[in-house]
Amino acid sequence: MIAQQENDSISNEKELFVKMVIDAWDAQNSKVDQLLEELSDKQLKAENAPGKNTGVYLIGHLTAVSDGLLPILGISERLYPQLEEVFLKNPEKSDLEKPSIADLKNFWRNVNLKIKGYFNEMKAEDWFGKHVAVSAEDFAKEPHRNKLNVLLSRTTHQSYHLGQLINLKGK
Amino acid sequence: MIAQQENDSISNEKELFVKMVIDAWDAQNSKVDQLLEELSDKQLKAENAPGKNTGVYLIGHLTAVSDGLLPILGISERLYPQLEEVFLKNPEKSDLEKPSIADLKNFWRNVNLKIKGYFNEMKAEDWFGKHVAVSAEDFAKEPHRNKLNVLLSRTTHQSYHLGQLINLKGK
Repeated sequence: MIAQQENDSISNEKELFVKMVIDAWDAQNSKVDQLLEELSDKQLKAENAPGKNTGVYLIGHLTAVSDGLLPILGISERLYPQLEEVFLKNPEKSDLEKPSIADLKNFWRNVNLKIKGYFNEMKAEDWFGKHVAVSAEDFAKEPHRNKLNVLLSRTTHQSYHLGQLINLKGK
Repeated sequence: MIAQQENDSISNEKELFVKMVIDAWDAQNSKVDQLLEELSDKQLKAENAPGKNTGVYLIGHLTAVSDGLLPILGISERLYPQLEEVFLKNPEKSDLEKPSIADLKNFWRNVNLKIKGYFNEMKAEDWFGKHVAVSAEDFAKEPHRNKLNVLLSRTTHQSYHLGQLINLKGK
């Protein structure tokens, strides 16, 4: 009976914390979704500040980073591995050919649908397992390097670039 | 003995969550600190994008928001309540008189020192208590509205504006 209570208490704590981080992640995603509704193609093609990344590059970059959650969380391979070269390994100025805005919006939507579907099925406990890029040995010493911490770090990353995307309004 | 184990397990889980969020918060703060070392006064006075907030306004805004952690977490009154009117309740264009850059950097440092000192003394358990702006009744229904969630939300907020401050490099 006491062991059961112990499990329930820990499980509730974990569920609470997972909810906090997923809510923060969802909030960032909703803001990007909303911006994508509002911004014209002309605005998305504009630089967020003189000489800085365009909306197109930023959306491609965020999509490639979210797509990377699939392998690092052990869900699947990337849906769009071709984005890595253009939006992660090279800067905008590399002039590699970029997908169309319509395709990018589609990629963004599909990656998020896939992630969300998986999150809905994950148990709170799963989030506290190690992510793929950390060794079992390191994880034993540093248990904060878990899957939920990956999502937390991607959430602040997304917010960082959202602060730049918002500059496109009024362009 | 089992009750002790239960307490230990829950306490360890909570310590892990708290570490994850405070690490994320610290990482954002360090990045702002580093930018403040690098940027000249001329760069800080520049707009992060044409017609958008200057570095001065963004630093004042972030300082005022961090200062607001003191009352909402029940630590103390704000250290610099005069920042609220200029950097929270009014936009940059209001032309209210702003503190000097030297003063702002000082305020930023002092607020962060005060917060950090308090965080070092807080127990993990304290973070899961309700923050000041939520009623006991609402908190019973929505236990995710705790102090740690406030810090999580301030962390993504800081990252958002950091994405804009970084635009000042090279100005």
